[in-house]
Amino acid sequence: VRKIVIGLLGAGNVGTGVVRILQENQADIERRLGGAVAVKKVLVRDPSRSREMVADELLTDNPAEILEDPEVRVVVELIGGIEPAYTYVMEALSRSKHVVTANKALMAVKGRELFAEAARRGVSINFEAAVAGGIPILRALREGLASDRIEKITGIVNGTSNYILDAMTRTGARYEEALAQAQEAGFAEADPTLDVGGGDAAQKLALLTLLGFGARVSVDDISTEGITRVRPFDIQAADELGYVIKHLAQAVRTPEGLILRVHPALVPKGSIMAGVHGAYNAILVESRAMGRSLYHGRGAGPMPTGMAVVSDIIELCRSVFAFDSGRPPPEAFARVEDVKPRPLDDERHENYLCVHVTNVPGILGRVATCLGTNGVSIKRLQQDPQGPGTPVDMVIVTEAIDEADLTAALQRVDELDAVQAPTHRFRIVDPDPLESR
Amino acid sequence: VRKIVIGLLGAGNVGTGVVRILQENQADIERRLGGAVAVKKVLVRDPSRSREMVADELLTDNPAEILEDPEVRVVVELIGGIEPAYTYVMEALSRSKHVVTANKALMAVKGRELFAEAARRGVSINFEAAVAGGIPILRALREGLASDRIEKITGIVNGTSNYILDAMTRTGARYEEALAQAQEAGFAEADPTLDVGGGDAAQKLALLTLLGFGARVSVDDISTEGITRVRPFDIQAADELGYVIKHLAQAVRTPEGLILRVHPALVPKGSIMAGVHGAYNAILVESRAMGRSLYHGRGAGPMPTGMAVVSDIIELCRSVFAFDSGRPPPEAFARVEDVKPRPLDDERHENYLCVHVTNVPGILGRVATCLGTNGVSIKRLQQDPQGPGTPVDMVIVTEAIDEADLTAALQRVDELDAVQAPTHRFRIVDPDPLESR
Repeated sequence: VRKIVIGLLGAGNVGTGVVRILQENQADIERRLGGAVAVKKVLVRDPSRSREMVADELLTDNPAEILEDPEVRVVVELIGGIEPAYTYVMEALSRSKHVVTANKALMAVKGRELFAEAARRGVSINFEAAVAGGIPILRALREGLASDRIEKITGIVNGTSNYILDAMTRTGARYEEALAQAQEAGFAEADPTLDVGGGDAAQKLALLTLLGFGARVSVDDISTEGITRVRPFDIQAADELGYVIKHLAQAVRTPEGLILRVHPALVPKGSIMAGVHGAYNAILVESRAMGRSLYHGRGAGPMPTGMAVVSDIIELCRSVFAFDSGRPPPEAFARVEDVKPRPLDDERHENYLCVHVTNVPGILGRVATCLGTNGVSIKRLQQDPQGPGTPVDMVIVTEAIDEADLTAALQRVDELDAVQAPTHRFRIVDPDPLESR
Repeated sequence: VRKIVIGLLGAGNVGTGVVRILQENQADIERRLGGAVAVKKVLVRDPSRSREMVADELLTDNPAEILEDPEVRVVVELIGGIEPAYTYVMEALSRSKHVVTANKALMAVKGRELFAEAARRGVSINFEAAVAGGIPILRALREGLASDRIEKITGIVNGTSNYILDAMTRTGARYEEALAQAQEAGFAEADPTLDVGGGDAAQKLALLTLLGFGARVSVDDISTEGITRVRPFDIQAADELGYVIKHLAQAVRTPEGLILRVHPALVPKGSIMAGVHGAYNAILVESRAMGRSLYHGRGAGPMPTGMAVVSDIIELCRSVFAFDSGRPPPEAFARVEDVKPRPLDDERHENYLCVHVTNVPGILGRVATCLGTNGVSIKRLQQDPQGPGTPVDMVIVTEAIDEADLTAALQRVDELDAVQAPTHRFRIVDPDPLESR
């Protein structure tokens, strides 16, 4: 099996997520890659302290053990902040190692130097995780929309701010209360300034602008306003006017140049952005040929962010394997399995039924009994009142039931004398229950 | 300037879109790529008939002029259907040409043979446009979520079916009426069988399953039901029960194997899928580390589909340049510009204002006058009734006005005697007006 050796700088929340994903999804990753990813060393402050996911012998407090090891081909920087991350990353690049980072501050502030060094050494620096966690928005701009002319990017890119505003909107809480609650739930840092002040969103906007417009801007030049001034009164008044207050980051192409801004705004209820809840992120891109496209998901947290980091590692490994072998990487999975889908017989669903009957006395009871004796529980039943003898559509919602049982029961129902035509049946599916709305 | 020569097979709607994007976005594409894409020949049935976007001398009815030309490195197949597309694509691959195609039927039915030949020749076959037009969902599965374990994919992937169901839901029209309307609006083919019967969605589901699960399934094994049985009565009854009827394609990993199904279903109002309107597509992916992520946009039409095709061409060109030069491709744009964002002074917005005043007689008029004489038109104004002398929050919605003018006006307002504290101000933004909701 081909193998790529990597080293991690940092073993905080995201680092732990990275290691966990590499372990838990190992089989899938190897199937995709046709090779393995091996973590050789992990840089930490205190190697004597054991970590949950990392074997003790991998820990080191000496960066040279990673940066100067010729076997390490990919360095994963998860320290955060500018220094010492910048020094380490430059060192890795200068030794022709590929780099993956989740560090938006580093990329927004030091991108110019890092890209130049990477180009000089013929290596890549991947940073999908730096914007909107696991949502592959940088890839979408770099590849999926690569042929298009981007006109506008609007994002909810700071999960902490969105969590707080959403909580204020739902519960009427004051900013301070919602912040405390977000901190307790792990959605806000002890020092939330970078998030609630808008600085984090501005850094992300600078990166979106780089990949979407090919324009490098200084974060300091972005007009930035955080959410600290938003009061329950404003949220209530906005609600009465038909709006929701959201924290937006926006880049707009105009004939006179780019407009960049980060601030709270009133967006219409029912708009896509108004529907982004909790710590979710969303980015809406407007481009000439495509029109609008939307990317929505969890924009923070160790697992989504770690997932983006490991996906970047996989992309690098794919291209390293491709370069090493002189052939392009395989489609998606190095090993594809031939699969026969399962029969749907024991799939369980609630169902919508429409039974077409003649309105004779007792027909409702007979249909219900027929369903019941065949194991179908009825959750709701409604029948439009009609004169006797007229055709009637009886609408029934079933409790969850296996497909095979329902099919058998419907066969019996359709055999009843008063049933005029085969029963209409559609499944009831909730594709996105709970958290995201 | 580096240049890649390509040949097009087919110049129908999508072909025209491809040529148009290559022309209209040429400058942006060259900036991204650091090189040019040149169309050398276009295969058509009748080269004597002139085309809007393609120079006459490019047209040919001889496939060999493209397939056997050693200068052509990328062949773009836009004929559709299995034959002769399959023969041409195999021929191109066997001559070590890369292939880009929008042909979902070809990829779903003949993927095995095509991938094998591409691997044998060390070339790539890209087909992002085959699923959900310009939405980069295959890239998301192949790269963005590459490290994750996909658990479930739920899609609205047939724009025609969604357009028809959406029209029936909005207007109460019968299926036949909505179909005729969709045909008139260009959202349904003269023979709509493949779309409304679910076959198109099943082919796309097979491709999503390949890239998401590494599982190759036969389209014939996918339980498939179209939308032709859905009646206005069902839509109305579903509405009363709190649901919307949508046409879903779903792949679910279960301990016993994959479940694949394509059928109309009742989804709860307020769910993400219920909010997908018109000819839009959406794909919701559930994966272990990431949780839910959603990809939403225009899933069909010459421009979105052409955009996906050209983006695939760019990706191939990037990797061809990289292989030729032995260096990885540059970040996003080969040429990045340093940009200073425009000042926001002449940005125009409606605004939400909250003026903090003491409730003295005539204060409302004085604030309104002060705004008016400084060029700010008021669209709405509301003030909670309070006793005289008490502090009051006056909520005002302005008409659209330039930032600079508003700033100047607010300075004057805040100077009024009865104004107690700096006026709260948030912009009103509609990030996604019109069609998509």
